[in-house]
Amino acid sequence: MSNIILQNLEKLGVSLPQAAAPAANYVPYVKTGNQLFISGQLPMQDGKIAKTGKVGADLSVEDGIEAARLCAINLLAQAQAATGDLSKIARLVKIVGFVNSKGDFGDQPKVINGASDFLVAAMGEAGHHARSAVSAGALPFNAAVEIEAIFELVDN
Amino acid sequence: MSNIILQNLEKLGVSLPQAAAPAANYVPYVKTGNQLFISGQLPMQDGKIAKTGKVGADLSVEDGIEAARLCAINLLAQAQAATGDLSKIARLVKIVGFVNSKGDFGDQPKVINGASDFLVAAMGEAGHHARSAVSAGALPFNAAVEIEAIFELVDN
Amino acid sequence: MSNIILQNLEKLGVSLPQAAAPAANYVPYVKTGNQLFISGQLPMQDGKIAKTGKVGADLSVEDGIEAARLCAINLLAQAQAATGDLSKIARLVKIVGFVNSKGDFGDQPKVINGASDFLVAAMGEAGHHARSAVSAGALPFNAAVEIEAIFELVDN
Repeated sequence: MSNIILQNLEKLGVSLPQAAAPAANYVPYVKTGNQLFISGQLPMQDGKIAKTGKVGADLSVEDGIEAARLCAINLLAQAQAATGDLSKIARLVKIVGFVNSKGDFGDQPKVINGASDFLVAAMGEAGHHARSAVSAGALPFNAAVEIEAIFELVDN
Repeated sequence: MSNIILQNLEKLGVSLPQAAAPAANYVPYVKTGNQLFISGQLPMQDGKIAKTGKVGADLSVEDGIEAARLCAINLLAQAQAATGDLSKIARLVKIVGFVNSKGDFGDQPKVINGASDFLVAAMGEAGHHARSAVSAGALPFNAAVEIEAIFELVDN
Repeated sequence: MSNIILQNLEKLGVSLPQAAAPAANYVPYVKTGNQLFISGQLPMQDGKIAKTGKVGADLSVEDGIEAARLCAINLLAQAQAATGDLSKIARLVKIVGFVNSKGDFGDQPKVINGASDFLVAAMGEAGHHARSAVSAGALPFNAAVEIEAIFELVDN
């Protein structure tokens, strides 16, 4: 699948960044059996958090969508770092998206679509995933969005 | 197990609704190995969200319990849609329940019991599950509760 | 690995408490395949919640770190109860840490390090894990932190 994902990314004009180092004492991914767990990713771009603040208050929904897309790009970058070769990814299983918002915000699905749409565009059929989208009370470093993921790896 | 669950649901006076379509660009469930991941379910009833607002403020704890129960019914409806036959479900593994509340609310366990009690009533021993219950900062469309689940499937 | 963990805990001056009973109608852990899912743990000590309140407001970040460490001790206590023998734990896979805070808090990674640092100290290399750290809108009984975990079990 590697070539397909890389071709799709090229069409999308996206080059995967270097996988971000974790913000603390943990690791960015763990493989167990056929599952690859990726730690919660922030909307990092060029080594810093590109979107901070509360979506729907400090930031527009469109900004939130872009933040979610950046989280998804970083998820794929971690999957690349974990596997060395994206063809070892069988499919995306699930994401959980946390939006930084005030208590009256209700457009989490629209925001996390920024990630879902990108992942399906990049991975095709294999990018379809289960999902939960909620607001967090607050997020690390005031990031606008945080997203974690589980991928399924191909059998060895 | 199918007959048992269906018999239990009949005793409980619950008929599974048609599985709700996702609110965005993702899928309601993904199977990987023996695991079935169900996307976060809202308290849908008759095609619309039956309970909106903040539990403990706009809504009573009892309303929250009913919302959690509706989420659980929708989780089972998705499991039915995913398997075509609930006898393919070996057990419930885990749920995460997100309650829509203000910052001073502490009765998340009582609210999410609305789901846990229903799932154990419907599935019997196989319905016992690990669980986290927290408040979200806010939920999609101001839903009162959102719950996601992992089921274990029987070996093929 | 049991002896190593027990030796490490002794060096750390930590004795595992009796695994806490769940606050509601669910079970503290479920095994499925090689995975052990532990329910969200609160900062229990001597049978009660030792740290309550909002980190960064009612509580210092240092209090939050200690709360996270207590959650992690309870996660290990549950793993001990689940396996009867910690040598059956192959590794820690992932934790999700929920911090009780106001909307302007951004030090979730530092707080959840209280758990991550302890787990690596107790488990060594096998303790490295994927992680998400977010704030909840509120937590059960006003607990300062709640953490859930997935462990990988050794093959039978």
